[in-house]
Amino acid sequence: MSIRIGLYGYGNLSKGVEYAIMQNPDTVLAAVFTRRDPSTVRTITQGVPVYKSEDAPAHKDEIDVMIVCGGSATDLPVQTPALAEYFNVVDSFDTHVRIAEHFKNVDKVAKENGTVGVISVGWDPGLFSVNHIYGDAVLPVGRDYAFWGKGVSQGHSDAIRRVEGVKDAKQYTVPVPAALDAVRSGANPDLTTRQKHTRECFVVAEEGADKARIEKEIKEMPNYFADYDTTVTFITQEELDRDHSGLPHQGFVFRCGSIGKNGEDRAMIEYRLTLDSNPEFTASVLLAYARAAYRLSAEGFRGCRTVLDIAPSYLTAKTGDDLFAYLQ
Amino acid sequence: MSIRIGLYGYGNLSKGVEYAIMQNPDTVLAAVFTRRDPSTVRTITQGVPVYKSEDAPAHKDEIDVMIVCGGSATDLPVQTPALAEYFNVVDSFDTHVRIAEHFKNVDKVAKENGTVGVISVGWDPGLFSVNHIYGDAVLPVGRDYAFWGKGVSQGHSDAIRRVEGVKDAKQYTVPVPAALDAVRSGANPDLTTRQKHTRECFVVAEEGADKARIEKEIKEMPNYFADYDTTVTFITQEELDRDHSGLPHQGFVFRCGSIGKNGEDRAMIEYRLTLDSNPEFTASVLLAYARAAYRLSAEGFRGCRTVLDIAPSYLTAKTGDDLFAYLQ
Repeated sequence: MSIRIGLYGYGNLSKGVEYAIMQNPDTVLAAVFTRRDPSTVRTITQGVPVYKSEDAPAHKDEIDVMIVCGGSATDLPVQTPALAEYFNVVDSFDTHVRIAEHFKNVDKVAKENGTVGVISVGWDPGLFSVNHIYGDAVLPVGRDYAFWGKGVSQGHSDAIRRVEGVKDAKQYTVPVPAALDAVRSGANPDLTTRQKHTRECFVVAEEGADKARIEKEIKEMPNYFADYDTTVTFITQEELDRDHSGLPHQGFVFRCGSIGKNGEDRAMIEYRLTLDSNPEFTASVLLAYARAAYRLSAEGFRGCRTVLDIAPSYLTAKTGDDLFAYLQ
Repeated sequence: MSIRIGLYGYGNLSKGVEYAIMQNPDTVLAAVFTRRDPSTVRTITQGVPVYKSEDAPAHKDEIDVMIVCGGSATDLPVQTPALAEYFNVVDSFDTHVRIAEHFKNVDKVAKENGTVGVISVGWDPGLFSVNHIYGDAVLPVGRDYAFWGKGVSQGHSDAIRRVEGVKDAKQYTVPVPAALDAVRSGANPDLTTRQKHTRECFVVAEEGADKARIEKEIKEMPNYFADYDTTVTFITQEELDRDHSGLPHQGFVFRCGSIGKNGEDRAMIEYRLTLDSNPEFTASVLLAYARAAYRLSAEGFRGCRTVLDIAPSYLTAKTGDDLFAYLQ
């Protein structure tokens, strides 16, 4: 019997989950819920019903786990707790400073209604968090480093698009190679924001716009660009569409520990992701944790968990003696 | 209240655990058990009682978790199940093909006696296994690659020492850079044993020994060296002691997945360890899982688990709301 997955929302992330379902024979896409007119939404998988999002509760018996694919700013803080009244839910809530609050909201509803919630699933937060906790537990005397990129930052691309005279833009976050090398060398360097990452902006200006003013505004934008070495390259819409349409990303987590009698021996853990498609990979992680939510529910657990509270064996379709293969 | 750790055996690995205990304030070294005459064993930590190994059962109330530090070939298959009658036990059993059997032996005794066992803890098996399962669960369509080194292989060093005319030896396993590069490129190469690793042997010959014959015997040794490009360098005992006395090691686990609508997008996970001291790092992992064993026992769990069955949050001294820091 397959795990029946519901998708709440149908954008890039949801389509990534749909592709992941095709690779996981123990899962099936049972229904899609959308704020749009359902008759205008066609799923890639044939024969999947599309319902209006507000009708979701009526379909609670058709869904084992609902993957909530809204945005973290305004959608998920409302949607995930609301849906937890009816469904086991998984989301990719990634507003780091509000995760504890979101957890408590989902936990309360899930406990009251006998459902399971798994929040903040993906790679950061998500697999990066998992690596932070393993690294800190195994090497309590040590330092963490994290680098992101080369990859597209949607938030920074959006910020550039809000500058007057900008028609379209794409921003890449790029780790500074010398900083990566310094960390890998075991030097435990102190690194400023500027020393860790550069920001590369590809901008399509509106006709007649003052490019010098646009470049200055971008480079001086507080929080987003002022603390970084930023380059701005003006290109045409055709070039942007042709060369910058993908959503690749990369990331690195390091734990640099000191072990031994007097801390004289170095132990370093490096975890590195290289992704052609950020949303598709996040979706693949979401589906693995949807499987975990299903199992937790079947075991009688009620409430919210994060990636930190879920044993690795809950993520795989393998069970019992087949799991020993991972130890070989 | 600290977690009272017992050490069964007192060699390199046990001393590594002792150093790790110094870095983990919620743990304390409660006692050491040895096959030697206890009066000849002095622990690094002052005031730790040393008992004869056969007297261990009499001290069951003084120990929360016993870390069993014997060898995998003959010690652990006997010691870990036997000690599970009296103690929560953790070991680093690493004979990969016998892990399922060892698990069942420990599980049976632990269930009968209300104790917890955690077996095959370390990095391979151990953290590498954890990465294999996360990688396979998230990227079910993909390939695994693992590389070891540059690092000392104790088993291969021992094999060289058994060759006639060899006084002492140290063997390094070294990944082939071109093979690592090919994997990182996303080419998903098929690699033979010879293409993945080379073996570097540093040998001290006995006076008057036939070095050409020794070199030939090493290079043609089945299983150990015949399938590899092997170099043999003869050095003096002084050089061996001066330049090759450490136990450094490194290792890499890759999961190279295909995601997206038609598997056209690449997603790669690389997990890399760089260790000045292999036994000290293994010991640090053992102590983190001793904490997990203690918590599982306190929760009422009885039986055996592996690293696959234990949620990351069990490994750290942090609890409750402090765990959210890892998600930030």
